[in-house]
Amino acid sequence: MVRFVDVASMRRWVRDVGAEKIVQSIAEVIEHDFRRWDDFDKIARIASHSPRGVIELMPISDGQTYGFKYVNGHPDNPDRGLQTVTAFGVLADVDSGYPVLWAEMTILTALRTAAMSASAARLLARPDSRTMALIGTGSQSEFQSIAFRALVGVESLRIWDTDSAAMDKFERNATGLGFAVYRAASATDAVAGADIVTTCTADKQNATVLTSDFVTPGVHINAIGGDCPGKTELDPTILQLGDVFVEYTPQTRIEGEIQQVAGDFPVTELWRVYRGEVSGRVSRDQITIFDSVGFALEDFSALQALHDGVQGTDYGVDVDLVAKPADPKNLFALVADPASASAG
Amino acid sequence: MVRFVDVASMRRWVRDVGAEKIVQSIAEVIEHDFRRWDDFDKIARIASHSPRGVIELMPISDGQTYGFKYVNGHPDNPDRGLQTVTAFGVLADVDSGYPVLWAEMTILTALRTAAMSASAARLLARPDSRTMALIGTGSQSEFQSIAFRALVGVESLRIWDTDSAAMDKFERNATGLGFAVYRAASATDAVAGADIVTTCTADKQNATVLTSDFVTPGVHINAIGGDCPGKTELDPTILQLGDVFVEYTPQTRIEGEIQQVAGDFPVTELWRVYRGEVSGRVSRDQITIFDSVGFALEDFSALQALHDGVQGTDYGVDVDLVAKPADPKNLFALVADPASASAG
Repeated sequence: MVRFVDVASMRRWVRDVGAEKIVQSIAEVIEHDFRRWDDFDKIARIASHSPRGVIELMPISDGQTYGFKYVNGHPDNPDRGLQTVTAFGVLADVDSGYPVLWAEMTILTALRTAAMSASAARLLARPDSRTMALIGTGSQSEFQSIAFRALVGVESLRIWDTDSAAMDKFERNATGLGFAVYRAASATDAVAGADIVTTCTADKQNATVLTSDFVTPGVHINAIGGDCPGKTELDPTILQLGDVFVEYTPQTRIEGEIQQVAGDFPVTELWRVYRGEVSGRVSRDQITIFDSVGFALEDFSALQALHDGVQGTDYGVDVDLVAKPADPKNLFALVADPASASAG
Repeated sequence: MVRFVDVASMRRWVRDVGAEKIVQSIAEVIEHDFRRWDDFDKIARIASHSPRGVIELMPISDGQTYGFKYVNGHPDNPDRGLQTVTAFGVLADVDSGYPVLWAEMTILTALRTAAMSASAARLLARPDSRTMALIGTGSQSEFQSIAFRALVGVESLRIWDTDSAAMDKFERNATGLGFAVYRAASATDAVAGADIVTTCTADKQNATVLTSDFVTPGVHINAIGGDCPGKTELDPTILQLGDVFVEYTPQTRIEGEIQQVAGDFPVTELWRVYRGEVSGRVSRDQITIFDSVGFALEDFSALQALHDGVQGTDYGVDVDLVAKPADPKNLFALVADPASASAG
């Protein structure tokens, strides 16, 4: 049987264990998995684009376990009451090819994206960073805030969104979580004095939510909304101001902020920093940029954390996804008229 | 909610409606979809190979509906009581990116592979074909037999397998289904006098289950077991004896029998025959070869047939796969401690 973690089970798991603790556990698995980078059979995700959005499959394998995520990105979905991003994913046993876990990943993706951002910031932001600007206060924003508090120590948030209702929503949520929230009058206002700038907007176009004249020495930029061809957030001159870190170069060249610059623009893959082979931040005034697009490895890590977390619990149910004929070569017995087939 | 058709529901649906009728309905959708070939966003499947087998994702979209299948192929699985091939798949709405159907596809793949083979044979085999040789009597063999009877008129089967227990099993099933079955002493014996030769073996290697000296004028060869790099069934000289038809050339060049010959070896894509743009069989003595590997389009068609078939029925249940916050930008409300978050 395959364990199926539906939305209700995922909600109950996150509420019972706590979003902060889960983000921490996912970050631990992400860091472990990035350090064993060479174990993975990696590929840029496979995207199917349409006028309203994109549907993607993100497979990866470490030779023992295979995982993939299905995820969509439809920026106009909220206008019709739907979410921009929804997702689900699977883990399977490489040795047999049989699936073992099927899970909703709309919530899990929000947790893993936040875990990835905050874990990277731990390597790249100034250690005394306490204030974060959040450009974009949609679905991802509260998860980012929780993760940056848990892993980096962020206490104070400066927010901006073109949708004032989304700012209202965020302010209520974040205040309830104990954050000091400053509601900015513009993106420029939000970034003033921030140690970290997180951009998490959803427009499927080359938008410029941040221009280079407002990037100050020592800041860490966590750019997570530019994650599709033709979908970026940063003024490309910002990329010249600092050092750019990426998850998996072949995918980021297509999808990330660096799609705006030359194909040989220098970047550092994060796994090398996790391993200690190269440095993250090297000086107080250095500008660091995490050009994040979301890589299959992070979903694999999140699914592993979920799988470990729900093992032996009632979070989720076992479903009948794989046919099991008594004789593996007699699949037909499962569907034959009992009068006309041999016993399976 | 997403409709989930589990194994029990699939079994009940196939038993109630009848495998033969379902194969016919899938063949109709396959033919319709092949004729509108240009509507589809196509890609060769994405394979992850391991020593024991392969796990593949097979996505496709027609701009309205997106579908994908997860499928494994592990030739040694039956030795440990598992099936060589298991699968599941999803249909989603391109406009919103939301999934709508999730289904077991171990059984459905067996039905669609048979539907594809028999539909192609209707274009390529002699119309008076009544006798089929079956090399390989594993999971796929009964489904092939049913489809070739329903669509082509095959009544008599000449079988061979290196596993005599698998031949016993097939003989019982096929006799129960009303076929005349001749149990051959070798592959060579099986193909003698056959109008159609179907090879459906599972070895993950370049096996030669059929050599060119036993290929007679007018025969149609339905080669479905060679479907991976390094996994073929036919002596490559057979390919020189006739005309080779394929599903989707970029994938078949990597996976099919034609991986054994030059990259510019001439082949005809079946959609052109379905459309009437080129001929299938043109003479009684022509040797025709369907170098079948299984293409995502066929799974898409099968999932569509299933979706239509189970609409408004109790075959399957609705599952909670996509989180639905009341405010689409307030995903966090679904997992927040109720005391600390605004109402979703």
